[in-house]
Amino acid sequence: MKIYGDIQSGNCYKVKLLCALLDIEHQWIHVDILAGETRNPEFLAKNPNGKIPLLELPDGRCLSESNAILNFLASDSDLLPKDNFQLAKVHQWQFFEQYSHEPFVAVARFIAKYLGLPEARRADFESKQEGGNRALSVMETQLMKTPYLVGDKLTTADITLYGYTHVAHEGGFDLSKYPAIQSWLGRIASNPKYVGME
Amino acid sequence: MKIYGDIQSGNCYKVKLLCALLDIEHQWIHVDILAGETRNPEFLAKNPNGKIPLLELPDGRCLSESNAILNFLASDSDLLPKDNFQLAKVHQWQFFEQYSHEPFVAVARFIAKYLGLPEARRADFESKQEGGNRALSVMETQLMKTPYLVGDKLTTADITLYGYTHVAHEGGFDLSKYPAIQSWLGRIASNPKYVGME
Repeated sequence: MKIYGDIQSGNCYKVKLLCALLDIEHQWIHVDILAGETRNPEFLAKNPNGKIPLLELPDGRCLSESNAILNFLASDSDLLPKDNFQLAKVHQWQFFEQYSHEPFVAVARFIAKYLGLPEARRADFESKQEGGNRALSVMETQLMKTPYLVGDKLTTADITLYGYTHVAHEGGFDLSKYPAIQSWLGRIASNPKYVGME
Repeated sequence: MKIYGDIQSGNCYKVKLLCALLDIEHQWIHVDILAGETRNPEFLAKNPNGKIPLLELPDGRCLSESNAILNFLASDSDLLPKDNFQLAKVHQWQFFEQYSHEPFVAVARFIAKYLGLPEARRADFESKQEGGNRALSVMETQLMKTPYLVGDKLTTADITLYGYTHVAHEGGFDLSKYPAIQSWLGRIASNPKYVGME
């Protein structure tokens, strides 16, 4: 299978991390967003929404949306709970990530790290701080109760939220305010099969 | 079970529609967001992210995020495919909705319908039109090929995207440009168990 992505994107890195944890062989194809490679006709034929990551199966079928890819690749693994309610909790955290976490934490990081925090974007950058800290507080509340987001075991929900949380400092977020998150980050990074962003 | 929501919110209405289609008995508890009812301590104890809809089971366990609730309630129904890849496609469309559709279509509608399109928010409203139309085009591309988003059968992905798409005109979107979407909306609304927003 082929995975189209940019390892510096948290959404793409999540998929790389999951493949490492589950020993999933794949061909990684680097896509340069800033050069418009997600907007050319060939790519749009694979994903009309023009976004990475994108999974392409050997038979040509394609799947987009990082969290949908994670759950598909983890289908028969221990990273997805068998119990319906626990599984729903995994999904809850993944939707939370895309709506309440990524648009703040990842966008602030993008403005600071990729665009170099130009003056014209400073107000936008600042406006992301409150929402980002609110999302981190929601995670902290849960991680003070359980070692992983959905209880005692690592699930795809943790991989989902690890993606941008572990580089949140690059978006101006002070993780020292979130000790439970810090412990959780360490727990994930200590996995023998862990791979980092670079 | 109890469902906390506001039927005028597409995210809440989705859950109402699913319950109607699957004959799921529940107690609907109206929550007034503008009056701050999602931010009081009692509600935050149920959902630290302070959002509706929220599902509360008889044993007190709570689940948030509309699409996670839909999939949980549809767990053993025909609205979720058994095949792993088809199921992943349902999730793909649901994440697409939360990231690439709702922040444009629903937010434009909120500004126009609830805030009355004040001059101070006009630029914000206008800025949502391009992204909203892009999302609608992605749906149109798929619905020109298949009667429902994931193929021949209605799934929770359709209910997810029906929520805000069927009221997109309230956000300034011209659905006459999207004939395949219009046919699909009619297909869903013709279900004998269908309920509308009001």
